[in-house]
Amino acid sequence: MLTEQIIQSLRAVREQKPLVVNITNYVVMNNTANALLAIGASPIMAHSQQELAEMMSFSGALVINIGTLDSVWTPRMCFAVEQANANNKVVILDPVGCGASTLRTETSREIARLADKLIIRGNASEIIALAGEQAQSKGVDALDSSDAALDAAKCLAAEYGANVVISGETDYVVTKDSVVTLNNGHPMMPYVTGMGCTLTALTGAFAAVGDESGLAAAAVLGVVGEIAAENSRGPGSLQMNVLDELYQLDEETLIQRLKIQ
Amino acid sequence: MLTEQIIQSLRAVREQKPLVVNITNYVVMNNTANALLAIGASPIMAHSQQELAEMMSFSGALVINIGTLDSVWTPRMCFAVEQANANNKVVILDPVGCGASTLRTETSREIARLADKLIIRGNASEIIALAGEQAQSKGVDALDSSDAALDAAKCLAAEYGANVVISGETDYVVTKDSVVTLNNGHPMMPYVTGMGCTLTALTGAFAAVGDESGLAAAAVLGVVGEIAAENSRGPGSLQMNVLDELYQLDEETLIQRLKIQ
Amino acid sequence: MLTEQIIQSLRAVREQKPLVVNITNYVVMNNTANALLAIGASPIMAHSQQELAEMMSFSGALVINIGTLDSVWTPRMCFAVEQANANNKVVILDPVGCGASTLRTETSREIARLADKLIIRGNASEIIALAGEQAQSKGVDALDSSDAALDAAKCLAAEYGANVVISGETDYVVTKDSVVTLNNGHPMMPYVTGMGCTLTALTGAFAAVGDESGLAAAAVLGVVGEIAAENSRGPGSLQMNVLDELYQLDEETLIQRLKIQ
Repeated sequence: MLTEQIIQSLRAVREQKPLVVNITNYVVMNNTANALLAIGASPIMAHSQQELAEMMSFSGALVINIGTLDSVWTPRMCFAVEQANANNKVVILDPVGCGASTLRTETSREIARLADKLIIRGNASEIIALAGEQAQSKGVDALDSSDAALDAAKCLAAEYGANVVISGETDYVVTKDSVVTLNNGHPMMPYVTGMGCTLTALTGAFAAVGDESGLAAAAVLGVVGEIAAENSRGPGSLQMNVLDELYQLDEETLIQRLKIQ
Repeated sequence: MLTEQIIQSLRAVREQKPLVVNITNYVVMNNTANALLAIGASPIMAHSQQELAEMMSFSGALVINIGTLDSVWTPRMCFAVEQANANNKVVILDPVGCGASTLRTETSREIARLADKLIIRGNASEIIALAGEQAQSKGVDALDSSDAALDAAKCLAAEYGANVVISGETDYVVTKDSVVTLNNGHPMMPYVTGMGCTLTALTGAFAAVGDESGLAAAAVLGVVGEIAAENSRGPGSLQMNVLDELYQLDEETLIQRLKIQ
Repeated sequence: MLTEQIIQSLRAVREQKPLVVNITNYVVMNNTANALLAIGASPIMAHSQQELAEMMSFSGALVINIGTLDSVWTPRMCFAVEQANANNKVVILDPVGCGASTLRTETSREIARLADKLIIRGNASEIIALAGEQAQSKGVDALDSSDAALDAAKCLAAEYGANVVISGETDYVVTKDSVVTLNNGHPMMPYVTGMGCTLTALTGAFAAVGDESGLAAAAVLGVVGEIAAENSRGPGSLQMNVLDELYQLDEETLIQRLKIQ
């Protein structure tokens, strides 16, 4: 049932080639644009307030990633979220490093409050920090187990009306009424910078074709990352192979590999 | 005859190692710098108004790419074009997403008007939008066939005194008096973000050694992309292989592969 | 003796996974973050004045790279250096293109003066220009032999109390009292943009675990780059393979390959 939904979503992305607007961090712009292209979507990386109203009027979703945040970009992000709201489009928030600085925590909350339709994708530390619980955040990489973040995710779902994806060794897709667990992926994935940001960007592509839970993207990248890592000598190869496998992924492989419950 | 010109240009880039100043978008900065190095040129990625006069005084060409435009960068681009003019250097304009927003269309035209010696490199949608005709632009990726853009390119050549390269399944190199057609390349190439931006950057390297038509760069990247794609499992590999093949390209292979008329 | 120190430093990076704050250029942000992850460190790419005090309070070192400098970023860099000083952390300065513009030369000197604990990593041209001697700088790539820069490095060591790494065909690690020479590496390495920036970032990781000379990073990247290049068809593969080999590097290989005196 869930697997069937995921397959349908993948087919829809490849058929509809949705436009996804990304205001994201400098580190991952190239990779996330490439991931969107590889899965069949069409990335727009734009951040000027002078064009975001136009861009959101014909795009399918908005990805906001605060990885290299500053005071110049925050108003642009907020403006873009308002345009997404005005067009009834989903906002996907990646609260990178939430908890590592007051700026990140407060900006993440501001964006979460502002968005009408929201998916939040973070690691356990970030989800816990965003929910306001005590997180032992150390920089922008994850420390808390995904398990410990489940409660935080449920709080966020209630507080913001958001769906929440916690990525880690196990991924959790948390909606108001359900928790889906995914057990794909590979231990080498955290050695590639912005693998989580790639998941966030893909979540935008799937949201644009109707999957507002975040499930399909997490399922696809878990399987793809697993296949890619099995054929990689290290994180350089893995970064490249993820793009190749997103492009090559067929439905049968996805069904066979998927560990979902 | 044209093939011989292209070979001479390639030899000149590798011998002279021209400096190319790039004010380009965040998404492709790494890739375009690497493409310039791989073909034998020397990239400078600089955008501060405090140093662009100096930089243009000893560089061979200026690449302006509006992919991640905002109001902070536009004045820098214009200032750099003025410095290129003052030094009698060619400006290569990549009007990324022209037609997708008013900002992009107007800024592209402003830069085109400002440049004394100009090559424009875009996809069909962008060229049509820049020329002011009705283009069905959807985001930053191409929708119109290259054929339909030929008339627009001729208008641009007349209006701005520019040479125009339309890239797509077929590439067209349009000057005031001639149209050259190139039929290399591979259907996987649009799945790598900024492949067009790479062509624009390479056009800068060849302009710096005297090819002000844009032909040599289009020929080289068409052949290189074709070879690279034939050995690629997907767009991740392709992005990497393009750099390897730019570095490895020998004249004999270029002559054998080139489909030009 | 030196080899043993290098091995201990490598082990320390992998065990302690130090956080390294990077204010670096747009071109190399992805690669340098990935290089830090691959060697076992944890990168933070942050540049907002609103969070740099917090970030430096729990990080191990600060990398400042002026590759895509402008007047917006310079005050952020200076503020971050002050925070590093306040926390007694090493600053690693990469004076990219120093000598190619007045802006770069002056900004590099300003940062060098400001930092209490400092490692400077540059190519020969940059080191000579920073020291104020006459350098024939042409853009951001190296022209002078590393030999000619040794005197400049000794001046910088005296003037700023800095340790200096000159990278090139031969690398020199210059402290107040000693010069160590490294002869690893490969001629293909300069064809990858930002290979020097990668060395600078890695120098930050090793400084964070106590190697304030810059030696361990230069030794590791020299050996890794050599191995990676031997298995690369061109600079695209090399960029990828460097990450894989940083991840795979074992102590025995490092000892066998290292050419140090």
